[in-house]
Amino acid sequence: MAEPRISSIDGKLAEEFAVPSHVEEVKEKMAAFASFHAEAGRKVVLITSGGTKVPLESRTVRFLDNFSSGRRGASSAEYFIDSGYAVIFLHRHRSLYPYTRMFLTINMLDALEFQGGGAPGNTGEVVVNHQVLPNIAKVLKRYEEVKKSRLLLPIEFSTLSEYLHLLKAAAQALSKIGSKAMFYLAAAVSDFYIPAPEMPEHKIQSSNGPLQLSMKMVPKILSPLVKEWAPQAFVISFKLETDASILLDKARRALDTYRHQAVVANVLDSRRGYVVVVTPETQAELILTEEDVKNEVEIEERIVSNLTSAHDNFITQQVA
Amino acid sequence: MAEPRISSIDGKLAEEFAVPSHVEEVKEKMAAFASFHAEAGRKVVLITSGGTKVPLESRTVRFLDNFSSGRRGASSAEYFIDSGYAVIFLHRHRSLYPYTRMFLTINMLDALEFQGGGAPGNTGEVVVNHQVLPNIAKVLKRYEEVKKSRLLLPIEFSTLSEYLHLLKAAAQALSKIGSKAMFYLAAAVSDFYIPAPEMPEHKIQSSNGPLQLSMKMVPKILSPLVKEWAPQAFVISFKLETDASILLDKARRALDTYRHQAVVANVLDSRRGYVVVVTPETQAELILTEEDVKNEVEIEERIVSNLTSAHDNFITQQVA
Repeated sequence: MAEPRISSIDGKLAEEFAVPSHVEEVKEKMAAFASFHAEAGRKVVLITSGGTKVPLESRTVRFLDNFSSGRRGASSAEYFIDSGYAVIFLHRHRSLYPYTRMFLTINMLDALEFQGGGAPGNTGEVVVNHQVLPNIAKVLKRYEEVKKSRLLLPIEFSTLSEYLHLLKAAAQALSKIGSKAMFYLAAAVSDFYIPAPEMPEHKIQSSNGPLQLSMKMVPKILSPLVKEWAPQAFVISFKLETDASILLDKARRALDTYRHQAVVANVLDSRRGYVVVVTPETQAELILTEEDVKNEVEIEERIVSNLTSAHDNFITQQVA
Repeated sequence: MAEPRISSIDGKLAEEFAVPSHVEEVKEKMAAFASFHAEAGRKVVLITSGGTKVPLESRTVRFLDNFSSGRRGASSAEYFIDSGYAVIFLHRHRSLYPYTRMFLTINMLDALEFQGGGAPGNTGEVVVNHQVLPNIAKVLKRYEEVKKSRLLLPIEFSTLSEYLHLLKAAAQALSKIGSKAMFYLAAAVSDFYIPAPEMPEHKIQSSNGPLQLSMKMVPKILSPLVKEWAPQAFVISFKLETDASILLDKARRALDTYRHQAVVANVLDSRRGYVVVVTPETQAELILTEEDVKNEVEIEERIVSNLTSAHDNFITQQVA
């Protein structure tokens, strides 16, 4: 696999991917967040989460998307915060979100009721039904603590263009805190796109017959991220495949090509109970047992625990 | 535009679109719902809402999607219920939903608080903050009434295949109540797909180079729906374009081709304040004034009011 030329990626980003208007403002916000927490002695992790939207038309009716609920990113954010990290959560609009993720499978109105029911003592207050959401008090308490201590900075993207530009901005913002920064790139990023100048303006007409789409390959942004934008940071990428037989080989090749610190490798069907953390020297299988599943242990707790230790070693080595 | 052959569509549906395992069960549920409400003297509307997911791989990592929040369908469902209809809400998983749609822009945990705050009188109850959700009591009351009277039957789809098979099942289920059934086809359905037998099993590898996609045209299901599955029903389709200059022509052509009762035509940028209801004989512009917008009037109230009158006339004509 040939190594992508870095200079060409910066040019491509500017020409072929629409720049979000708020990118500079977000970059300053992220830089301030990182400095504040680094000065307080905290490490900072940038988590990317959810799928990217790739428009087929500039006034977009149709788009290509990636399967991703954002569960891994949202859940990991909570464990990183529990481990003392401050978290920048760069996530797809409406994907799963830390703490609120528990609500997403239910209709909120089914979880609310009038206090005292229809009885005369009805206060008019609308309360949460604890039978529907038994953990609500615990979750709300934790959410409020995290909000108060400003440990979570949420940033949203929808399209691939927004994702790429915001990730670059994040990398530049976090470069100031050196090896204290971790990148945890869990988002499901499209491999293909249509360059902005080649996109049709209007909705593609079905009366023109079958659709022939030709999509270019998305530049591998990991390369400039590791080599240019945040060269001192601890960088983790993710590899999701449906075919287990090619997974570890692909993970190793990614490490060879991009020279970052670790790949979390997983297979679509088993991703919630089994991952392999691959580094240049090691390969750690993380597995949930039946007992774990019964106790509602999440695999992200194990992943985060593995990576925060590795990050600590990495920081020590940089200093030494 | 040549009229699609109906028999070929039934065959295509069976061969090229995976049949959801629960389709017969859902069909019976819809038929029972329709009979129950028709016997109680109610009309029944089937609303389709949200975009369809078109997988590119059978173990799906990537898919084509359509822009649609489901706002029009969810909002219309409420107005149909207010107008005395029973509603089957065939919607994309996680698209906007009647009554709960007001929550979707906020993080629910930001709308909850401990009763009495952190004060000693704290009951441990988690209550809704009325400053964040001022209408919550009204909405919850209405939601509970609708639930109790069983006026809303929600059915979910994600993929195009699920949508097509469930819509066919709905049409057959509703055919039993004749002209009392309305179809309000507001979903944003893909025009293109990859037939199940031609789909690759595994994730498409980006190492193979740029993506060349060849997608077939989705069969026009409106044709068998109108002519075979529910020939007595009152059927409305929707037309969304980004180019206003071709919109009305496309709406008229759809009426000519499919011989249904009305097309609601709208342009992407102005769809929340302007639509045209096109029938073979008439063309009604529905517009929200600035005053309407200030009073939070929704265009769906006008659309539903226009169509329920037309449906009444239609029923009278069938009986006469």
